Amino acid sequence: MKIYDRQGTPNAARIRIVLAEKGLDRQVEFATIDLVAAEQKADWFLALNPVGKTPVLVLEDGLALSECTAITEYLDNLDGRPVLTGSTPREKGLIHMMQRRAEILLLEPVDDYFHYAIRALGAAVEPWRQPEWEGRGEWGQRRGAEAIRNLSWFDEVLRDRPFLAGDRYSMADISLWAGLGFGRAAGLQFPAYLGALAEWEKRFEALPAVIGRSGKELLPQDLTRR
Amino acid sequence: MKIYDRQGTPNAARIRIVLAEKGLDRQVEFATIDLVAAEQKADWFLALNPVGKTPVLVLEDGLALSECTAITEYLDNLDGRPVLTGSTPREKGLIHMMQRRAEILLLEPVDDYFHYAIRALGAAVEPWRQPEWEGRGEWGQRRGAEAIRNLSWFDEVLRDRPFLAGDRYSMADISLWAGLGFGRAAGLQFPAYLGALAEWEKRFEALPAVIGRSGKELLPQDLTRR
Repeated sequence: MKIYDRQGTPNAARIRIVLAEKGLDRQVEFATIDLVAAEQKADWFLALNPVGKTPVLVLEDGLALSECTAITEYLDNLDGRPVLTGSTPREKGLIHMMQRRAEILLLEPVDDYFHYAIRALGAAVEPWRQPEWEGRGEWGQRRGAEAIRNLSWFDEVLRDRPFLAGDRYSMADISLWAGLGFGRAAGLQFPAYLGALAEWEKRFEALPAVIGRSGKELLPQDLTRR
Repeated sequence: MKIYDRQGTPNAARIRIVLAEKGLDRQVEFATIDLVAAEQKADWFLALNPVGKTPVLVLEDGLALSECTAITEYLDNLDGRPVLTGSTPREKGLIHMMQRRAEILLLEPVDDYFHYAIRALGAAVEPWRQPEWEGRGEWGQRRGAEAIRNLSWFDEVLRDRPFLAGDRYSMADISLWAGLGFGRAAGLQFPAYLGALAEWEKRFEALPAVIGRSGKELLPQDLTRR
């Protein structure tokens, strides 16, 4: 299998944790996409993924899978023993819901902050963003503030249970963790007083698939410098 | 089970098709949310779904599930015979990918057109949208144009196979169909020359779970009049 991504970005980190959890690291070859040069919007890449985003997993039969949820569903079910996407109907529903919430309440507003408030990817990707308008940077700031505010909701959930969907971690926790790291790397100041969230983060970073890897190969400290 | 939604909106339609496909219609009680009055942003509703969107499915044990993908995963797996979300790892991956593409390439740009170009829900929901700026309506129009342009990609996929993920329909087709109907009801003029897409739409509307229901209880002709 081959993955097109860019090490150190949140979505690349999500799938690399899944690969480690499932013991599939060695079965994948990686190819780097130059996001600053907008290689993800080049014709050859759009033929793999018309959405123009990384990562893309190309299977041995040629099928190109994109979208972290889809790639995770594939990898997690390969051995017939899903641990990240749920086994029972209730688990599947809860995990998929929490996964989308981590995207909608955290990853997406952080992404808007990243692209509109600090414009960290620079000029080459501009044609694929919202066009210039006076309040664009302000709106990016507002989205960053939303991401910060939304963390309280996750903190509240994590007061009742060790992980977002219950006693064991799932792809929803991976997304939440990627969102937190992405936000910090983009320069957002997350509040320190969310105790349950802080405890959860320690638990998450002690997982076998994650331990010792945060801040190095998974998510770097600073995404604002190119 | 109880569903909070608003009949005639695209996400309500998606779940109602799933219920019909799985023979679960009679096991669900519906409660209407007044979207124009922003009831989906009221405190009691945000306690069910912090994202503030319909539908929400409340299970008998009290768990409130939101997000169409999550609700579909739950309902489709209840009888142990998933037909809309895939059985094999490859099917699961492909269906989830196509499902997100139907959202990203069609449902989301149509939603932006609906909220920013024509502002069809009116004043009550304004505080939850992007703030006023000069180019907002223009950006809504641009998103509508993107939705129209993106249909060519789906048409291309459907030249090779009867449904988005292969020989049988899945939740991805439900999302694509809801996006098409939503776009038309919002006033977008979709091109008539996309032959494979038109053929697919006929096939989809002849499915037992859909036949005779489009344009009536599922998606009305016009969402621009309140």
